[in-house]
Order: sequence, then structure tokens, then C-alpha cells
Amino acid sequence: MSEAMHALKELCRPIWNLHGVRSLLGWDQQVLMPPRGSGPRAQQMATLEHVIHDLIASPRFADALYAAESAPALSDLDQRYLRRARREHDLAAKVPSRLVEERARATSLAFEAWVHARKEDDFGHFLPHLKEVFRLTRELAEHRGFKGHVYDAMIDEYEPGMTTTQVQSLFEGLLPSLTELVRRIAEQPAPSRRIVEQSFPEEGQKQFVRYLLEQIGFDFEAGRLDKSAHPFCSGSTSRDVRLTDRFDPRLVTMAIFGGLHEGGHGLYEQGSPSEWDGTPLGGGTSLGVHESQSRLWENLVGRSQPFWQAHFPRMRATFPHQLSGYTTEDFYRAVNYVKPDLIRVEADEVTYTLHIALRFELERGMLDGTLDPADLPDAWNQKMKSYLGVDVPSNRVGCLQDIHWSDGLIGYFPTYSLGNLIASQLWVQIRKALPDLDGMLAQGRCAPLLEWLRTHIHQHASSLSSAEVIASACGGELSSQPFLDYLWDKYGTLYGLTPTAKENSVPK
Amino acid sequence: MSEAMHALKELCRPIWNLHGVRSLLGWDQQVLMPPRGSGPRAQQMATLEHVIHDLIASPRFADALYAAESAPALSDLDQRYLRRARREHDLAAKVPSRLVEERARATSLAFEAWVHARKEDDFGHFLPHLKEVFRLTRELAEHRGFKGHVYDAMIDEYEPGMTTTQVQSLFEGLLPSLTELVRRIAEQPAPSRRIVEQSFPEEGQKQFVRYLLEQIGFDFEAGRLDKSAHPFCSGSTSRDVRLTDRFDPRLVTMAIFGGLHEGGHGLYEQGSPSEWDGTPLGGGTSLGVHESQSRLWENLVGRSQPFWQAHFPRMRATFPHQLSGYTTEDFYRAVNYVKPDLIRVEADEVTYTLHIALRFELERGMLDGTLDPADLPDAWNQKMKSYLGVDVPSNRVGCLQDIHWSDGLIGYFPTYSLGNLIASQLWVQIRKALPDLDGMLAQGRCAPLLEWLRTHIHQHASSLSSAEVIASACGGELSSQPFLDYLWDKYGTLYGLTPTAKENSVPK
Repeated sequence: MSEAMHALKELCRPIWNLHGVRSLLGWDQQVLMPPRGSGPRAQQMATLEHVIHDLIASPRFADALYAAESAPALSDLDQRYLRRARREHDLAAKVPSRLVEERARATSLAFEAWVHARKEDDFGHFLPHLKEVFRLTRELAEHRGFKGHVYDAMIDEYEPGMTTTQVQSLFEGLLPSLTELVRRIAEQPAPSRRIVEQSFPEEGQKQFVRYLLEQIGFDFEAGRLDKSAHPFCSGSTSRDVRLTDRFDPRLVTMAIFGGLHEGGHGLYEQGSPSEWDGTPLGGGTSLGVHESQSRLWENLVGRSQPFWQAHFPRMRATFPHQLSGYTTEDFYRAVNYVKPDLIRVEADEVTYTLHIALRFELERGMLDGTLDPADLPDAWNQKMKSYLGVDVPSNRVGCLQDIHWSDGLIGYFPTYSLGNLIASQLWVQIRKALPDLDGMLAQGRCAPLLEWLRTHIHQHASSLSSAEVIASACGGELSSQPFLDYLWDKYGTLYGLTPTAKENSVPK
Repeated sequence: MSEAMHALKELCRPIWNLHGVRSLLGWDQQVLMPPRGSGPRAQQMATLEHVIHDLIASPRFADALYAAESAPALSDLDQRYLRRARREHDLAAKVPSRLVEERARATSLAFEAWVHARKEDDFGHFLPHLKEVFRLTRELAEHRGFKGHVYDAMIDEYEPGMTTTQVQSLFEGLLPSLTELVRRIAEQPAPSRRIVEQSFPEEGQKQFVRYLLEQIGFDFEAGRLDKSAHPFCSGSTSRDVRLTDRFDPRLVTMAIFGGLHEGGHGLYEQGSPSEWDGTPLGGGTSLGVHESQSRLWENLVGRSQPFWQAHFPRMRATFPHQLSGYTTEDFYRAVNYVKPDLIRVEADEVTYTLHIALRFELERGMLDGTLDPADLPDAWNQKMKSYLGVDVPSNRVGCLQDIHWSDGLIGYFPTYSLGNLIASQLWVQIRKALPDLDGMLAQGRCAPLLEWLRTHIHQHASSLSSAEVIASACGGELSSQPFLDYLWDKYGTLYGLTPTAKENSVPK
């Protein structure tokens, strides 16, 4: 390794170690911290942000980076290392500290205002904050720079290299077909949800989710499962990956699919090579690829018939009182119930993408100035009607439902859908590589699938870009077709939508 | 506030916030971290140490400190602030980084060697590491500087201002009387321990310890109680104080007195003014004063008859099967059982100090070169015989029992005894201020006692030095007499040691 490269790595080590520390503090805050600890914790988090920013944006770091980039004969891996380091440096150094702090203050106030506005269903209370967040975000995007659309500068933060045009064309490919599928499903009789609409004690849910996580290969020697208000996965390092889940006795599916979703994120983090912990090469490469892993385990595996063929008996043994008399098929149908509704986080596989398309269009408009935030409620409600056929009774369950905009997370929503698309593309490749995948899953054997993901996705961690991962693992560019094929196939069969139903898509 | 003072505070804020972060990471490591997380966590901790050291030892910090110290018309509080900041700066800046790192490496290896040596009862395996730790500690002390004894530079780290001569003279005042008391007690019949030598289920212990902590005033909105291998208290800030305890079904007293001990530390941390969180003024002022708070609640309150008059009924209700038929008096006598034995952490109030005196003498000798570490086992065993009358069957339960030396904690042991002395001195003052203290405790009213401690100790946090706290709260210099009076009084009555027993020392 060149001396310059070595010097840069010495400067990167503390920065990426502190990333891990920040991640742990965030986890603790949401899982364990006593209520009165929030004030001083915010100070500690701000200090960490500041220290990290000062280290990575420093002229010393810039010089070391430049020197390393100019060194002769860099290995392939060193070049990948430099690409990640350069990206993080540029993200930090291009933006004046003044703006970072101003935006942090504004989002902190906006978050409080949003909590209040949602509770009181008072959009007017949130509006000035929403305007301010978008104004500062626009300024942030200008500093970062962009080639095409101003929104490019924001989506690039979460999905490096992705552009507004690409996202737009993906959604344009999805919308007509999805709205058609939703319409066709709505004409069919709805399956019974009675099996999941019972009371399932929390302790049993915890045990069962832990069992499922063990089954899919989550390593509890290198991770934990805890309880929090909103499920999340926090990967401080590949050897300390923390999942959380919520356990509502009246909604057992929430814990099960929340757990599998976070478990999918967790497997990705645990699959990052441990020698890359605390370096720019460790951890997931982008939110879109991350979400492909969570969606794959939550939906493609977790809502499949073979998976429950293997695990429903165990679930019935855990909850004999609730589940005796029900079959795997009853459960499979109940957890694949499709219904256009108001709330994104409760949406099914089919309608979910429509919720995202709507948010993408609205936030892009508010960022480029074509949508005045004051008109958000109307625009929201119109799109809900046209995409999902749903009337929005109040902003509380409409445009005030998500935390993202109050938190300055603009450009983040599309990554949820990118995850679904990538997962379906991967699924096509996986089925080719493992022709008996359904048979394996029905026997409770998830290891070959995990092994495939380890080889093609996880082990590359952040050393490959999102586009490189997709190109190498999905065998081509990002496309919306495999996702549409998967949905029409599965739900065509489930809801008997002739003639698109394919006999062999769900094993009988 | 002067501009220079303001500038210094801006530099101090991130440093003391990072102290809180370090404390949280340490807590997590011992309480929750999955096993495989230890490697990367060590890296994160090392990074934090490094960042903190670089910030506080920097020429920029030195300049700001000097400027603030030279500013005119400093308030009393600013002067106290400067005293703490100066101390932390000097501790960090006087020692070359090379030595800090060398010592960190040496203690890390020594710790591993100690774990092995203790397990295998192989002192020879530990000896070279012990030598190296003391060699580097000696070097560290030379860099820090000292007026009298080289050991002064080490004890000053934990108990600022305390000297070897002072500690030595305190122990000289204690030893003859304590060995005499131990001898006299040994002549009496031993009380029955049957009541505590039963099986107490863990869940009940947890509930009961939590109940006791609530009774003494621990605020669970600003703290937690968790389980760990060794009990400790971690105060990240006054609003996030975390206690741990261990729960052995065969030894209920461990959880109870461990919990009260850590609870005493926790009350001190919670009593630090919240506006001093993340500043040099926050938190406990010294280990000795900290230990006075833990010992006060563990022993002077927690092993008193009135305290159990109030709480034994609840304990009996929690464990009806084990405790029906037993009286408060049975429990009180069982938890005040005195027996010279091998292990410090299991020692009773009377013999504990002798364990500390022995360690103080030995570590002082190894530091100043008058005791060759190779001779440690012999020296240890001789002192155990002469102070406690105990024969040491193996080094495993002799000189290898404690973690401290392997960890480089030299000068730390005496603070345990200082805590006992300070606690007894405080107790004299408290009894004067609250003449009906026993009556209050017997009614389960701990609030007046806590209020006294808040006023005289806690609210001053680190703004007063240990000596100032003692002078103002104990009404004089540190002395061993009140501790001896307390022990002779209490145990004289308990063991019927005429003529020193005083009729009124334990309420009937």
C-alpha cells in the first residue's frame, strides 16, 4: 500500500469508528434511554456530528485524500476505498457549517411542530416549518451541486448515482400497471383476515419473531433484538447489529413482518466483511440496496406460501389457542390481503409503491418550486384519489402522516420503491441459481438463499456502488418489469385474476 | 462572563459531552453488547479516548485555558470551573501520547494474562505483566510529577489532593482498633445466617431491589436498573444514570446490598445540577466522596435496624415462602455477620478496611520499588495472616483476586476506605441535623436524609473539591475516629462486647 493511502486510512479510522458510535447512541435513545436523558443526549449527538464533520471536512483530510488519489498503482480495492472517502468528504466539505447548523435547528423545530400538527390535525401549524425546511434543503442542494434536476442532489445522498429522471421513468413504468392491478383485485372477494385479527400475547410474539430470525440466519452472537416504538435496524458494525420490533397483541402481523424486514437489513449488515468494520468499505452500499434486502425477506420470502409451509406449524404450536383449526393456506391468504388505504406503513405489497410515487412527485415539486407547500394537502388528496381511489378524511392520515419531511429527509422516499424493484430483480436471478428454492424454503432451509445473497450482495458491502451491485447481481439495469411480473403472478393466482394468473407461480 | 471564559467553555463542551458518550459505551459493553461486538467496540473506545485526549491536550485548549485564567474579575464559580478544566488538561497534557498508548497496550495484555492466571492459579504467568504495568505506571507518575511520594501522583488521579502520608496515617489510626474488634467479635457466637441462605428467585429479587431504589429516592425517569456480571453505576449525565446489579438465587444479600450501593452512587449523580451536565462542574467530585455516598446507603442506612423495620415486611411479602416465620431482627443480624475471610468484595463492614490497608501498602511498595512484584504472594499472605488471621490457600483467592492492578488502576484502592471514613463523618453530622433519623428510616421516610445529602454534597457536584466537601459537610478534616466509633458501637451491641457496647446505639 502506498504511504499516502496508508496516511488516509489513518485519518479515516476515527471518523468511521465515530459513525458506529453515533449509530449506537441513536439506538440507545430509541430503545433504552430514560425519558429525562433526551436533553443531554441531543447535546452528545450534536457534539459527535460536529467532531465527525470537522475531521472529514478538514483541509488535512482533503490533502490526504488528494495525495492518496494521486498515488501510483492503486489496487482496485484502494480505488473503491477512495471513492467512498471522496464522497463522504465532498458531502461534508461542500456545505458551509452555517447551513448545516441552520438546517439542524430548523428540522428540530419542524419535528416538534409536526408532532403537534399531526396530533391536532392542524396543517397550518406545520406549514411555515415545511416551507423553511424545503427552502434550506434547496440551498443545501445548490451547495452540493447537480447536473440535471435540483432533486438529484438530494436523492444522491441516499442512493448515490441515482437521478430524478431515472426514478421518474421507473414510476412511469409502474403506475398504469399497478393501478390496474389494484382495480382488478378490488373486484374480487376479499380473503378472510380472521386468523390474524385475534389477540396474540406479546411474550409469544417475541419468542416467535426470535425463532424466525434464527431461521433466516440472523446471528445473535453478533446482534440483538429489542423492542421500540418503531422497528429499525442499527448496524454499528458487522459484529454488533441491533434489530428492534414492536409487539401489538391485536396485530401479530406487525411484529412478524416488521421483524423479518429488519432481519433482512440485519443480515446485510452482518454479511459485511468484519475487516471492513470502521472503514468506508463496511456496511450497506445504499438505502435502495438495503431496502432490497429487507423487502426480500419480508415479502418475497416472508409472505410466500413455502415459507409458511415450513414455519406455520411452529407458529401454531406457539399460539395453539388462537391457531388450532387454521391451515397454512389460511394464514398465507390473510397476510397477502390487498386493500387500498390511507397509511403508507400499513400498506400491502401492491399498493405500497403508489404511496411512494405520490410522495416522490410532491417532494420533487416542493423542492423545485413547482408545488407551493401551502397547496400540499390538496395535491396529496387528489393523488390519493387518482392512484388509490381513496378519499382522505383529514391531513392527520394524509400529508401529515410521515416524519420524513419534518426531519429534512427529502429524496429518501424513492429508496423504498427502489428496494422493491431490486428485490424482484434479484429474485429472478436467485430462482435461476436455486431452481428448487421453493422446496428449500418449504423445508425451512434458508441457508442456500442467504449464501447467494452473501456472495452476490453482502460481502461487497460498500465496496461496490449500488449500480455495480445491480449490474452484477441482477444481470442488468434497474427495471420495473420483474416487480410487476412478480405482483401480477402472485396476486393473479391469489385473487384468481384470469388470464394473467400463472398456474405454477405458487406451489400448491 | 469574560470573553476568554466563554471561549474556554465552548472548547470544554464537546470534551465533556464525549466523556458522557464514553461512559454510555462502557455501560453498553458490560450490559448489552453481543459477544462478537467486543473487537470493534474496543476500536470505538480507543478512538473516543484519542479524540478526547487530542481536544483537551491541544495547544489551542492550553491557550484558551491560560487566557481564561488570566481574565479579570472571575466569579467564584468560574474559578471552580477553571480549576477542574486545568486539572483535566494537565492530566492529559503532561503525559506523552507514546506512554499513554504503551500503557494501554500493556494493561490490555496484562488483563488477559490476569484472567488466565487467576483461572489457572498461576501467578508466574501474570508476573511479567505486573512488573511491566508498575514500570509504566512509575514512568507515568514521574511525568505527572509529585511533591512527596511517587504514589501521590497516582492517588491524586482518583482523589485529587490526597497524599500518601495522609492515607498512611489514616490507616495507622484504624488498624490496631479494627484488628482488636475483629478479634473480640471472633470470640463471640456467630449469628445465624439461615434466613439469607435460601433460594430467592431472580424475578422477585429484581422487583424488590427496584422497590428499595424507589424508596431511597432514585429517579427512574432519569435512570435505569439492569443486570450485569459486576454491579456498577454509570453516570453519562445527571439525567441518565444507569445502575446495574447481579442476581444470584443463592445469595439474595448480594443483589440487595449491591443495589443499595450502586443506588447511592446513582443518587449522587442524579443530584448533580442538570445545567452542569456536559461541563467540568458536573458529576461526583472524587472517588472517595462517591464511595461515601454508596457506602452510606449500603451500610449506614442499608444495614441498619430501622431501615429493615420499614422494609422487611415488604421483603417478606415478596418472598412469603422463604421468610414467613422470620423477624426483622433475624434479618438484621444475618446481614451484619462479621467473619474474616479471603475475598475483599465479599467482606463485611468491619473487615473490609483491612483488605484495603493491605492492598494500599503492597501497591505503594511495588510503585516505589520497595516491594519486588515477584515477592507479592508472600507479602500478601503474611499481611492476610497478621491483619485478618486468615491463611491464604492459593493466589487465586489471594493476590490474584482483584482486577485493579492488571487494569493499571493503582492508587484506586484507598478511595474505598476513604468512602467509609467520609460516610461515618457525614453520619455524625446528619444525626445532629436529623435527631429523629432512626424514626424516619423506621417509617420508610428516606427523603429528609436524601435532602440533607442533596444540600451538603450532591448539589455541589464537582464544583467543590473533595477536601472542601469534607470540610463543609463533615465539619472538619478527614478522620478515622467516627468510623471506629460507628463500628464499635454497632458491633459492640450486636455481639454483646461489654464494656464498649452502648445501649442506645441500635433502637430496640
